[in-house]
Amino acid sequence: MAEKFDIVTKALQKMLEEKKYAALRDLLLVMYPSDIAELFYDVEEEKIPLIFRLLPKELAAETFVEMEPEAQELLIRSFSDNELKEIVDELYVDDAADLVEEMPANVVKRILKQADPEMRKSINQILRYPDNSAGSLMTTEYVSLRPEMTVEEAILRIRRQGVDKETIYTCYVTAKDRKLQGIVTVKDLLLAEDDELKITDIMSTNVISVSTLTDQEEVARMLAKYNFLALPVVDGEDRMVGIITFDDAMDVIEEETTEDMEIMGGMLPSEKTYLRSSAFDLFKNRIPWLMLLMVSATFTGLIITAFEGALAAQVALTAFIPMLMGTGGNSGAQSSVTVIRALSLDELRFADIGTVIWKELRTAILCGIALAVVCFAKIWLVDHLLMGNEDITLMVNAVVCLTLAATVVLAKLVGCCLPMVAKVLKLDPAVMASPFISTIVDALSLLVYFLVAKSLLGV
Amino acid sequence: MAEKFDIVTKALQKMLEEKKYAALRDLLLVMYPSDIAELFYDVEEEKIPLIFRLLPKELAAETFVEMEPEAQELLIRSFSDNELKEIVDELYVDDAADLVEEMPANVVKRILKQADPEMRKSINQILRYPDNSAGSLMTTEYVSLRPEMTVEEAILRIRRQGVDKETIYTCYVTAKDRKLQGIVTVKDLLLAEDDELKITDIMSTNVISVSTLTDQEEVARMLAKYNFLALPVVDGEDRMVGIITFDDAMDVIEEETTEDMEIMGGMLPSEKTYLRSSAFDLFKNRIPWLMLLMVSATFTGLIITAFEGALAAQVALTAFIPMLMGTGGNSGAQSSVTVIRALSLDELRFADIGTVIWKELRTAILCGIALAVVCFAKIWLVDHLLMGNEDITLMVNAVVCLTLAATVVLAKLVGCCLPMVAKVLKLDPAVMASPFISTIVDALSLLVYFLVAKSLLGV
Repeated sequence: MAEKFDIVTKALQKMLEEKKYAALRDLLLVMYPSDIAELFYDVEEEKIPLIFRLLPKELAAETFVEMEPEAQELLIRSFSDNELKEIVDELYVDDAADLVEEMPANVVKRILKQADPEMRKSINQILRYPDNSAGSLMTTEYVSLRPEMTVEEAILRIRRQGVDKETIYTCYVTAKDRKLQGIVTVKDLLLAEDDELKITDIMSTNVISVSTLTDQEEVARMLAKYNFLALPVVDGEDRMVGIITFDDAMDVIEEETTEDMEIMGGMLPSEKTYLRSSAFDLFKNRIPWLMLLMVSATFTGLIITAFEGALAAQVALTAFIPMLMGTGGNSGAQSSVTVIRALSLDELRFADIGTVIWKELRTAILCGIALAVVCFAKIWLVDHLLMGNEDITLMVNAVVCLTLAATVVLAKLVGCCLPMVAKVLKLDPAVMASPFISTIVDALSLLVYFLVAKSLLGV
Repeated sequence: MAEKFDIVTKALQKMLEEKKYAALRDLLLVMYPSDIAELFYDVEEEKIPLIFRLLPKELAAETFVEMEPEAQELLIRSFSDNELKEIVDELYVDDAADLVEEMPANVVKRILKQADPEMRKSINQILRYPDNSAGSLMTTEYVSLRPEMTVEEAILRIRRQGVDKETIYTCYVTAKDRKLQGIVTVKDLLLAEDDELKITDIMSTNVISVSTLTDQEEVARMLAKYNFLALPVVDGEDRMVGIITFDDAMDVIEEETTEDMEIMGGMLPSEKTYLRSSAFDLFKNRIPWLMLLMVSATFTGLIITAFEGALAAQVALTAFIPMLMGTGGNSGAQSSVTVIRALSLDELRFADIGTVIWKELRTAILCGIALAVVCFAKIWLVDHLLMGNEDITLMVNAVVCLTLAATVVLAKLVGCCLPMVAKVLKLDPAVMASPFISTIVDALSLLVYFLVAKSLLGV
């Protein structure tokens, strides 16, 4: 794919240089909107409006939606009022609302001025809903049918109104009071045995809908779970206000996954893609957690200082600190990542915490024993016999391996519990991921180490 | 949602106990297949066939598809040959192929015996493709049209064949040699101005297709990128063999994301959901990386042993080891997580490695300086003045903070390069995530620490 793409980019550059605009237009006409938008990354900024003007109206609007905000702003600034109006007229309401949210105030003013009154009203309605809610994600353009229509009338209505709707395949049956009564798919309509059947007789009344305030992540999960093309959105009085389509759900899942991974990696969620983020953007997202974790590592330092005497007496103990802390961190990360993912897939609820702890405890004991046995053999064979380190006595070895097993158990328990507790406190479980947990586990493992050393070695 | 669900589960349990099967059936009839499948988790095993038999044929098949393999096997074993045939007849070919892949040999034999010859052929065809390929994911049930048909004939064909097709909304136009010539959507057909228009005149010939061997992750990304309902799959001779629908793509994305997170958390990818995995399953997935990382931590141990003299002379140095290693590990994890995610979203290619290194270097320098300054102040104020630790001289402080800054830079460079190198070596970049990188960074940071200490403190 990537290679084919480079060839197209080169062809396009050449046509631009040689001013072969007719050929360029023909090339663009056989391309898909998201590919054209991608092409713009590799084109000099001042050429973008020129290429864009070669696109026919509909393709232009579809391409516009796929572009990055920076390029969109650049284009709008180069548009005449008329050109802007043509694009805005072609946009779906949800895309127009996204655009209005991204652009600076003076650009927004121009966009709203060019939008027709009905679209302006719909945009304003969508913008009133909180960020990340179903209301802010939905579009108000759907096909609505009346229960008393016949199949034939319904098909006629779709034919008349369908061009401007984001999906025509699922139609929403509403009464005069705009309350949602059922859904009918185009498949139902086409496969209906008799054109004179009433919609009310073939519609499915068992409708799953979301409220305008439902979190967008839950909406996306529901679309994925039920394999729907679209979900209806209703307001507080059960009146139909919009729909959310599967392609928006896919975008939400992608966004939320990236956010989860960033948070789990000890960063603030990013606003832009990696290549579009400046070094300073990255710095701003990364430094808070680094700072916090560095300062909290003071505790591990304090523990070491408190046991300085023990370390001085048994210098061999120091060499195993990184291995113990590392294994503890890794064990904790395994459990927390697993639990965080299961929570975000709705596979786990807080009520399962007992099951989770019991499962993790048994897993931890298995891992702890296996690691301790291998570690014991390795230390004895490699460090003691092979390297001839006399400081590493049988007792020192026992202290290390006992601590290792205990650390693994502690780490896995901390790792599985913290995300679940975060969930019940309505915090994001992903915050409780590896960096946070390793700091806690580091402190715990050192404490255990020195306590075991004290009691077994008497240092 | 979850609460509502518990209420339904309780109602169902009660109806079961009181043998109110008619009421139970009415309740199931208004539920969605994936919800019914979920209900089965909380029901005693021997009751599952009983409840399942209450479902009408189509709902039964749809529910069956959503169930876990264990429950499916249980059901099939309780089915008579006739019952099995009824379900198998209702399945889509891709779901039937998935089922055959999951079941043990004797169950597979029964399934294939009950499938009609055409379905048996299609199942066998799908099973011949490699795991995770487009061929193994596709279904062979799509609507195909001929270019010379009229719009009216096409609609008639959809009406006649549509019931058994996974999607009717995108139709594939093929010539007699089965080569894919174009696509037509039901929207195109419904909105066509004249019923007598030929398909060849309204079809879109600019078709994006995938080969049977394309990786399923790429297929899913393409569906998400272009917002298609389905993608056609063609064989080596460009003949149309099947389609992949958006709902399968959503499942693939979910699976692959889970797999990425597990690998990044230092685990082997799991086969089952968390609650269905036994402690031993978890142990098997987790112990290999723990073992490997524990053994490789030997190097950090060796470095400490080599500098034992320095540590004995300047005991204060030991207390900062956890902080240095922890900050290094976190810095490296930040970079690797960011790069791994960008690679898997196709935002980065190997050709960008120069840009990435330059961006990470500047970010690392910013983070390194900020952390070193705060660390210096903290050590001086807290450890030296407040705690009165005389061992921590200005020079010791300088050694710690210089090492800290250098470690952050090294960690970020290692963190961003390793996943990109993995990608170009056709390894999974996710393997190069935090646990692996922290082990490398641990060793590097200790080396830097002792070298800086040696030159500044002369220990």
